[in-house]
Order: sequence, then C-alpha cells, then structure tokens
Amino acid sequence: MKDSYVLPAAADMHVHLRDGDMSKAVTPTIRSGGVDTVYVMPNLVPPVTTVQMALDYKKRLQAIDPDINYLMTLYLHESMIENPEIIREAKKAGIAGVKSYPAGVTTNSSSGVLSYEPFYPVFEIMQEVGLVLNLHGEVPSDKKEITVLNAEPKFLPTFLDLHKRFPRLKIVLEHVTTADAVEAVRTCGDTVVGTITAHHLSLLVDNWAGDVFCFCKPVAKTPADRRALLDAAVHSNGKFFLGTDSAPHDISAKKGKGSAAAGVFTQPYACQYILTALEEAIERGDIKDEDVTEDMLRGFLSEWGRRFYGVESSQKKILLKKGKEVIPESVKAAGVEVVLFRKGETTWTVEWQ
Amino acid sequence: MKDSYVLPAAADMHVHLRDGDMSKAVTPTIRSGGVDTVYVMPNLVPPVTTVQMALDYKKRLQAIDPDINYLMTLYLHESMIENPEIIREAKKAGIAGVKSYPAGVTTNSSSGVLSYEPFYPVFEIMQEVGLVLNLHGEVPSDKKEITVLNAEPKFLPTFLDLHKRFPRLKIVLEHVTTADAVEAVRTCGDTVVGTITAHHLSLLVDNWAGDVFCFCKPVAKTPADRRALLDAAVHSNGKFFLGTDSAPHDISAKKGKGSAAAGVFTQPYACQYILTALEEAIERGDIKDEDVTEDMLRGFLSEWGRRFYGVESSQKKILLKKGKEVIPESVKAAGVEVVLFRKGETTWTVEWQ
Repeated sequence: MKDSYVLPAAADMHVHLRDGDMSKAVTPTIRSGGVDTVYVMPNLVPPVTTVQMALDYKKRLQAIDPDINYLMTLYLHESMIENPEIIREAKKAGIAGVKSYPAGVTTNSSSGVLSYEPFYPVFEIMQEVGLVLNLHGEVPSDKKEITVLNAEPKFLPTFLDLHKRFPRLKIVLEHVTTADAVEAVRTCGDTVVGTITAHHLSLLVDNWAGDVFCFCKPVAKTPADRRALLDAAVHSNGKFFLGTDSAPHDISAKKGKGSAAAGVFTQPYACQYILTALEEAIERGDIKDEDVTEDMLRGFLSEWGRRFYGVESSQKKILLKKGKEVIPESVKAAGVEVVLFRKGETTWTVEWQ
Repeated sequence: MKDSYVLPAAADMHVHLRDGDMSKAVTPTIRSGGVDTVYVMPNLVPPVTTVQMALDYKKRLQAIDPDINYLMTLYLHESMIENPEIIREAKKAGIAGVKSYPAGVTTNSSSGVLSYEPFYPVFEIMQEVGLVLNLHGEVPSDKKEITVLNAEPKFLPTFLDLHKRFPRLKIVLEHVTTADAVEAVRTCGDTVVGTITAHHLSLLVDNWAGDVFCFCKPVAKTPADRRALLDAAVHSNGKFFLGTDSAPHDISAKKGKGSAAAGVFTQPYACQYILTALEEAIERGDIKDEDVTEDMLRGFLSEWGRRFYGVESSQKKILLKKGKEVIPESVKAAGVEVVLFRKGETTWTVEWQ
C-alpha cells in the first residue's frame, strides 16, 4: 500500500442518517469520511413508505448539508401490496431503491416483511422500471434454531430464490458478514451485488462480546468470515462495494438499562476505517499487499457502487493520507452523543482537494 | 414438575465471592439461593496462590456469614512448579482443589497457565493426595482462529489428554457450554465430572448480543448446545452438577467506557434460576416433564457435587416453591451495585425449613 491516494469522492451506499436531532448531528459528518454520495436507509419511525415521505426526508437532509448527493429509498411495506404502482411513481420521482427488512431483525424494522411472495408484483415492476431491491439478509431469530450467528446463512436460499424469479431485478445483499453470503453473491448474475461495511472488515465476534459499541446486526462473525469479506473487497471487480451501514444511536440507547441498540457508528471516518482495516489485514496475512491497488480502492470506495446505481462519477477529489489522526470518543451535537467506532485509535486522514 | 420440592440445602460448586466490599455485598446472598456449601474460586487480585492466603480468605468469608461451608481452592500458578509440595500442605489444611485458568481467558486470569506440562509434577501429587483440579476449559483467543465461540471445543483435546495422563486425578470441567464439552466429559472415567451454571441453562448467544449483563466467559452458545446442557443436567446420574459461576461485578465495570467485565451474577437465586430454566426447557420441548424428578433435582443441586468432593450431605432442608417472586434489579450493599441475572422476571422461591 502507498502512504497516500488521490481518489474521486467516495460513495457510501448504505447509511442511516435518522431524523430530527440525530440527523443534525450525523449528516454533517458525511464529508469527513471522504463521501459525497450516500444511499439513505428508510427505517425512520414511522418508516418511509410513500414517495412524498421520501422527498420530504430528502429536503430535510439537504437543509443540513446541501453538498451531498442523497439517494433515497422506500421501506418495503405491506401497503405496497395493494398499491404496487407506487414503484413507478417512485421511479419518476428519482427514488433509487426499496429496502427490505425481515421483521424484527434490526433497528426500526418491526414493520418489515416476513414472506416475499405477496411482494412479487412489486418486484415485477421494480425489475421493469429499474428500481434496486436492498435486502437485509437475515431471518428473524426464533429463539429455537435461528441465532444471530446463522441468521444470514439461513436467509441465503430466499435471496437466491428471489434472484432466480427476478433475474433482471437489481438486488443488493446488504452488509454481508459471512463467507457463505460472499459465495452466494458471487454465484449470481450481474444484477446482483453485495455491500460491505467498514466495521465488518475489522471486527470479530470477540470484539462485540461485551462491547456494545461493536454490536450491530448482522453481528461480526469468525476469522474465516472476515477473511472472506476482505477477499471480496480486494477481488471485487465490481461485485462488492462500500456500504458502511453507519448506524448512529445516542449513548443512552447503547448504555441504557436494557439491551443495547444494534449499530456501529462509522460515518465520519468511512474511508479511513477501510484503509486501516486493509492495512491490518495485510499485517495479519489475510490479504496480500499487492491486493490493495489504487484501482481497487477507487472501485470499492467510489466507482463500483455508482456504476451499479447508475450514478455519474464524482468530479470531486479526496486525498487519503496514512496519518496520525486519533479518532475521538464521540460526536456530540444537537443534544445527542454518538460514540465512534475505534474511538481513541489512530487512522488515516481525508483531505478534500 | 411439581409446584414445590423439599430438598437438602444446595451445594454451589463454583462461586466467585471476591474480597473486600464486593465480598461483603454478595456473600450474604448465598443462603437466599438455597445454598449452604460453596466451592470458592481463587481468582482474587492478587490470586490465592498460598495455603495461608486461602486460609485467611476463608476467615474473612466466615466473618461475613459463618453458617456457610466454604470449600477453598488455590490458583494454579507457576510458583507451584518450584514448590509442588504446596499440594500436600494444602491437603493437610483442608483445601479442596486447585483452579486452572488459561491465561487471559476470563476475569482476573492474567496469571493463569499456558502450558500444562510444567505442572505434571503438581498434578501427580494432587492425584496422590486427592486434591481436585478445576479447569476453566477455554484456550485464549488468538485473534486469528480462536474466538469466544470455539475456545471451549479447542480446549477439549488438552482436557482429554490430562485425564489420560492422570486417570486417578479428580478433574472438573467447569461451566460446560457446548455439546462437544458435554460429550467429552461423558467419555471420561468416574474421576471426571462437569459443572453447569444456572445461566447457561437458559441463555443463547442472542441474549448476550448487546446485553452486557448476560455476557460471561465461556459465552452462551447455540440452541443445540443449550439442549445438550439441559440433557446433561437431567440425565446426569452424577456426571454433571451445579456450579453457578456466579460472577459479581459492580455496575460500573459492566457499563463503563470500555469493554464490559465478563460474568453473570446469579448467587441470590442459584436454585431458583435452575427450576425456572428447567420449566422453560420443558415448555420449549428441549426436555421432557418426566425428566425433572425430585431425585434429579436433589442430585444436581445438592448431592452429586458433595459426593464428588467428599463432603457430607447437608442436614438442612429447603422448600422450593413455584412462585411469583420477582427478581429485583440489583443487589446494593457495601457501596457496590451488582445487577442480577433476569432482573424483573418471575422465578421460584426458596424457604429454609
């Protein structure tokens, strides 16, 4: 790896910007991560289930930082079964995709879907007009056989079946965390890709055991799974790209009386964490130094995601420097405090050119 | 299951009573759990590595509650390699066993052992005089292939090798958490047993994902592993018995800035949690109602552990009643606060006869 790279601004194809005060706290940190384009998750409370809600949400985000390109999504919801035409309306309005959450699996996903069959007419129109389907690829825990460890592998047959039924439907398997998921994405055609987060390139199950700030869904898994994710990132050739799934929660939701909210906050260092994770993977011998090329970084961080979503390349440039930037404890703004991933550790720096 | 059982007082063959204020807070809760005999772990700071330290520690515990029978242990430590005769001295002084912690695996285990070979002379004398070897059966995480998920299975070859080398040495594989560990204990001779905690009979990996108060080492694992533990408890015939591994930590060590301390606090409801876990297992279909007999409960909670350690049966009786006792948030005493396992849930009651 080199000590510095000049790359086009990054595209983070999976972000949680929330709403209200939290939104005011985290949206301004997008640029710090070297990112100028974000794919915005719709799991607000209530979820973004209409075109108007999505457009209003986009306006609120633009009011916070107008220099970011916000790609908006709808929340796959039973109301769409009666009204699949919402997909054409969404396409006309410039909405980029529809996110599916298996019910109850992750934050604010209680109104997600359980069976996909009723949504086939919706997927049919998505395929026709070219809207992307984003899958949170886990089955809900049933407290019997399904746990956070096998929830993703158990979802893969459903994922593969959807691709078979809708081969022209663009599908993103979000935040892949297992070797099985990487393999499943690779077996699919060009319409299917996977996103990889910054934190899953560095975390193992041991890191979230006892540390709520490393706890997210899907959970980080084994060394073999992490190696598969690193291999997918550096040998992606467009099949895998960055989606941080940066998921801010106020510190009170992480350290409250009950169970901690799932989510790792990585937005302000989106690109920096990736470079650090790749450096560490080379040191561990998980990947080779020559695997990390400027083309690979440009593709994974900036170009492959845009290409899949049909977004123009960015004209803005960022300088990534191997540096001594120490990650602060948290982002404190608008009355919230969000603890940062790898707080207190040293990472790369980003400068806008 | 019946709605009530009259049993001899229970023996908890794996407890952490700590020292100082924490000891003053938790030692008085032993009786609340229906227990009159405890096997006391030596992982204080510094660890209990001499006979005098163990005897002084016992005096401090007796000063807090004189009505409990404290079975004392030594911490397997490199200093014993130079002085294996400490084992004979320990036996004369009435010390019951020696606890081995693989270095760095669990709380206060940083002075534990890495290779057992230098300790063979120590084990030889333990076998000769009849001191018990208690194994924390995990290999240290190496951040490469070993994680909290496979650390116990990876230790089993070492465990089986020790039994083979010292067939007459009494060995307890502590707090077994996997089907593999249960099977390994079953394959060994009569000198080898396993202990099972209250919390591992009810927890799964999903429970500690994001909940520091359910996080301990070894971590709770899969539904199949939990079924194996339940089966080991109800079909034990003396091969498995209660050792709660109740591990109190002040709430500040659980909810502090860094990683949470490993340990689940179960002392005040030791027997009650077991009855509740067995009830729930019957509801789930993991065990049969007829598996839970009065003989099984008497053996698992009170008699089998005493028999293995050569302790007389208790003349005291407890009445366990299926009840409406709500577990409080925490034990607050002596300036510490220790959050209780299953706080706010309903469990059985214990009355001393």
